[in-house]
Amino acid sequence: MRFIVSPTAKSWIKVDPLSHFPIQNLPFGMAEVDEENVMAVTRIGDFLVDIYRLIDEGFLPLEELLETDGFSDITREQSTQLRKALFDLFREGNPKLRDNSKLKKEALIPVSELNMVLPMPVGAFVDFYSGINHASNVGKMFRPDMPPLLPNYRHLPVGYNGRASSVVPSDVPIFRPKGQTKAADAESPSFGPTRELDFELEMGFFLAEGNDFGEQIPIERAEGHMLGLCLVNDWSARDVQRWEYQPLGPFLAKSFATSVSPWVVPMDAIEPFRVIGPKQDPEPLPYLQPSGPSHFDICLEVAIQTEAMSAPQVISRTNARELYWSFAQQLAHQTSNGTPTESGDLYASGTISGVEPGSFGSMLELAWRGQKPLVMQETGEERAFIEDGDVVSITGYCEGKGYRVGFGTLSNQVAPSL
Amino acid sequence: MRFIVSPTAKSWIKVDPLSHFPIQNLPFGMAEVDEENVMAVTRIGDFLVDIYRLIDEGFLPLEELLETDGFSDITREQSTQLRKALFDLFREGNPKLRDNSKLKKEALIPVSELNMVLPMPVGAFVDFYSGINHASNVGKMFRPDMPPLLPNYRHLPVGYNGRASSVVPSDVPIFRPKGQTKAADAESPSFGPTRELDFELEMGFFLAEGNDFGEQIPIERAEGHMLGLCLVNDWSARDVQRWEYQPLGPFLAKSFATSVSPWVVPMDAIEPFRVIGPKQDPEPLPYLQPSGPSHFDICLEVAIQTEAMSAPQVISRTNARELYWSFAQQLAHQTSNGTPTESGDLYASGTISGVEPGSFGSMLELAWRGQKPLVMQETGEERAFIEDGDVVSITGYCEGKGYRVGFGTLSNQVAPSL
Repeated sequence: MRFIVSPTAKSWIKVDPLSHFPIQNLPFGMAEVDEENVMAVTRIGDFLVDIYRLIDEGFLPLEELLETDGFSDITREQSTQLRKALFDLFREGNPKLRDNSKLKKEALIPVSELNMVLPMPVGAFVDFYSGINHASNVGKMFRPDMPPLLPNYRHLPVGYNGRASSVVPSDVPIFRPKGQTKAADAESPSFGPTRELDFELEMGFFLAEGNDFGEQIPIERAEGHMLGLCLVNDWSARDVQRWEYQPLGPFLAKSFATSVSPWVVPMDAIEPFRVIGPKQDPEPLPYLQPSGPSHFDICLEVAIQTEAMSAPQVISRTNARELYWSFAQQLAHQTSNGTPTESGDLYASGTISGVEPGSFGSMLELAWRGQKPLVMQETGEERAFIEDGDVVSITGYCEGKGYRVGFGTLSNQVAPSL
Repeated sequence: MRFIVSPTAKSWIKVDPLSHFPIQNLPFGMAEVDEENVMAVTRIGDFLVDIYRLIDEGFLPLEELLETDGFSDITREQSTQLRKALFDLFREGNPKLRDNSKLKKEALIPVSELNMVLPMPVGAFVDFYSGINHASNVGKMFRPDMPPLLPNYRHLPVGYNGRASSVVPSDVPIFRPKGQTKAADAESPSFGPTRELDFELEMGFFLAEGNDFGEQIPIERAEGHMLGLCLVNDWSARDVQRWEYQPLGPFLAKSFATSVSPWVVPMDAIEPFRVIGPKQDPEPLPYLQPSGPSHFDICLEVAIQTEAMSAPQVISRTNARELYWSFAQQLAHQTSNGTPTESGDLYASGTISGVEPGSFGSMLELAWRGQKPLVMQETGEERAFIEDGDVVSITGYCEGKGYRVGFGTLSNQVAPSL
């Protein structure tokens, strides 16, 4: 069951044409009511919609949502049901809630009034490496005497298990992690705050439903297991990573923080923006072969604002369609050995870089390993990596005719080591 | 607070001197009552002790245990309190339960009557690589033209995040996973059941209490966060691993199954077996420097039984003291970047191999990459890796004077691919 809102549909809530949250979106998120309570919300224009309240009042289906941990126990099918009901309630011309001024006032909350928390409790986190331009750039930097892509790269979506416990929402500070590092010219390693703190621009998806032990999620059913997409910043400590990662992969260089956007944009909301991805050559093995286009046209942007700056400066623009492996291929691969998954499992795509320097998804690439520091136009400050006080913001949206479907902004300020 | 039972103490329950479960042990485990219910148990000799029932009757403290998920919500301190009360109830000479024949009959269950399940729900799983002989052997095999240990090995406990969702208990079948592999002489990879299924002999520890975001667990407090130790079999698909693991480490080659012993042996029970580990040279950085001996003398053994055999054959004998990095060093390192941890988090040591061939902790090493297959004495069968129907059993115990403190047996049969 799919529910795609017509591009011409409008809501009785006024929505700016550049807003990420028209009635075509209807994303899922959780807002913090007080220290102990959260509420399931969607967003239209500049309003959060209190889904719990509207279910309580009989205006929305899915009473079971009230007894569960937000969206983590509803199926993809149920999420579509909810989406349908939300659309109906908010579409132009439906007076049911529009003319109920008391309930409207209670159920519609200006976005500035509540903080958003994680959209779902994250059970497990897998991070892929499907940004082929990023993988090539890293290969060029770290293995200059070899072909930039390793032999397996075009045969399977390379990935690794990340740390679910340190997945955090937008707007929380990221403390500069400490770690063991060894400078190339140092005789022995030392321990202290990382000197090479980096972001990684990634997209992610949350699972609505998992698979049982021993089962595989076949590629043709993979998207049906996804609740929706989100933005991911896979924070990285490059000096820690360089020293620790051989031979078992990144560990503490990544496990200190991974931030995700407050909004999970439903698969049905991005459906109109489906595109064909890069040509896959060699042809993937049957278990990884998609039956049709499985990439999405999502404009992505990274901005930095240092403490001395009055506004952020965009430092990179790219697109999710640059990913070599699709989300469906990632999930089909990850479950191909029968590992069980669950609702709330988070998957990140790997860093998304375009081909040109201005489209790279990490400071490592943008400043090319520190060799070409970025200059902040407003202040003349230079950045090879991220400094304390810097705010890193990632944003993303799909561009429709006269409307946008977006993810909002994933923004975190870096704080000094604790 | 520590509670170490005197080596000469006895229980009014008769315990064989070779049993792993004298009154000095009092391990923690969970038994399956029926499809929906589990009970917290300890074991003395051949009896499971129904802890829930004894708390209910006021014979044991920690009423809060009845409302929680087994041992996953009690602190190390509370676990010691429980251990103390268990010791008192079962020590020779205390008639309180011994002479209450009705309750005794209900609370003591012959071990053969119930299946054991996971001792705790596993929230996160980290696997280290601290078996230095194993790391050397793998280095020799896979990077023959380089020093077997990479430069970081003696400076930090190399590790990676594993997959918590596929941690399973003893006695469940391990289905041969499928995966993508590429033979050295093949032009392109293929997908199918692994041809190189392997075990890895490891020890593990479960956390009793975690740390908050941004905090570190300093090495001197690390053991205080551990509930106890267990046996771990980190099942591996070597052909999948070889093809997938560059550059981000093992992923699907390990995520299909990791099995753990039903028993978590409390830190206080292994305290008498504390020993000095291998000399660490170079001296570790301060955050990894132990204040005293932090290894444990635990005899370990692996046996295989093929379907044609009538009894298992021991194929390896080694000892946990062979680990280069201690459990305390592992936890101090893993939290050194402030990643939060929780009760129920599982850590595995890495494969424990001795120096001699008969003491290696994996088939990869025992049969030296298939070049020296093991011969089963009883049947003449050869094994380079694990075949369908084979039962792999890991056991481990500390040898005291006239008693043993052990982990029982972690035993799983391999089943054909689903």
